[in-house]
Amino acid sequence: MAIVRKLTREEAKLVTRRRLLEATARLLTKTGYGGLSASAVAREAGVAQPTFYVHFRDKDELVRALAEEKIGEQRARLRDARASVHRMPGIEGVRETFRVGLRAIAENPGLFRLYAQERGQPGSPFGEQARRLEAELRHDLTEDLIGLGLPAATPAERTRVEMVAEAMVVQTEALGIAHLDGRYGDLEAIVDVLAAFAMGVLGHLVVAAGARTA
Amino acid sequence: MAIVRKLTREEAKLVTRRRLLEATARLLTKTGYGGLSASAVAREAGVAQPTFYVHFRDKDELVRALAEEKIGEQRARLRDARASVHRMPGIEGVRETFRVGLRAIAENPGLFRLYAQERGQPGSPFGEQARRLEAELRHDLTEDLIGLGLPAATPAERTRVEMVAEAMVVQTEALGIAHLDGRYGDLEAIVDVLAAFAMGVLGHLVVAAGARTA
Repeated sequence: MAIVRKLTREEAKLVTRRRLLEATARLLTKTGYGGLSASAVAREAGVAQPTFYVHFRDKDELVRALAEEKIGEQRARLRDARASVHRMPGIEGVRETFRVGLRAIAENPGLFRLYAQERGQPGSPFGEQARRLEAELRHDLTEDLIGLGLPAATPAERTRVEMVAEAMVVQTEALGIAHLDGRYGDLEAIVDVLAAFAMGVLGHLVVAAGARTA
Repeated sequence: MAIVRKLTREEAKLVTRRRLLEATARLLTKTGYGGLSASAVAREAGVAQPTFYVHFRDKDELVRALAEEKIGEQRARLRDARASVHRMPGIEGVRETFRVGLRAIAENPGLFRLYAQERGQPGSPFGEQARRLEAELRHDLTEDLIGLGLPAATPAERTRVEMVAEAMVVQTEALGIAHLDGRYGDLEAIVDVLAAFAMGVLGHLVVAAGARTA
């Protein structure tokens, strides 16, 4: 649909900002953070280089804005999902937790490829946001696992629950990214595997602790 | 110990090559692949920039040489370990598999930080080698899991075993890297968690398939 009325100054600014952010997302997946430059982003977005600096001080500020927007959306989505998962009983709640995470990845391939790429990069503002999201997921899952019966009375037990949560988060991410790469086509088959790990480790650790099984 | 005799031309060449490789390893952990340049490597190694090009055509060739050497060493080590693990019975073999992988990480912090950093970078020759090692580990572990009783008669079952293997590899890597970051101090506690996951999922999937438990 063509926009007939001329854009206001504010609308034009918004469009240019959006173009710069989307151009960054495209370039980042090709070059990584280190290879990105303000001039390449301006070229990709089809705007003059001085215009770039009207919107962002430098590439760091640009990538930080992109990361906050895109990863922030996923964080909000996963938080909402967690609240409704909490109302599901036992194994169905466990499966739904993984399903929600996997769907987030499957529906945002560009974003999560970038996430996997930048997560390990020490100087990358996108990587920083990715690590922050990962730490939050780990924290939430730790609480959920304690709720499901994993013992956490001593510091050693608490650390163990954190390790279990961390392992589950990276499993979900890795199999989700492999799905994007076309290696595992069926999301429900991935849910099956993640649930088998989860139920297995819960049974194993809860029983080992002599507590009730979840 | 001081070397009294003057270096031969060949020895001097070897020393310079070694300095360039070690300088690259140091710089890569700071800047990532995208931020690396031949001039920065030469400066860090304390050699003149033209000398760089006596040894390597460009930074790609340099990083590829580094990756082949360092990751190749780990690959050989893990292969050797696998052969001896195969002679251990049941759970002790499973634990030893994880222990060997975790020790490789713990004893080579610089290498595995770089591994975690570059693994996701599409254009990085170091990342390429890292992904190749990961694919090999996944393949070996898939065979081992089938040996432990995971059903793999149909394509869907085979894919499931591959997913289980992939999840185990990334769990081990993630907890090993977290150990380097100082989050989990005790390697044996990590082995406990990985073994609980492994025994849990094996029990779960082998029993579910109606086959004998491993």
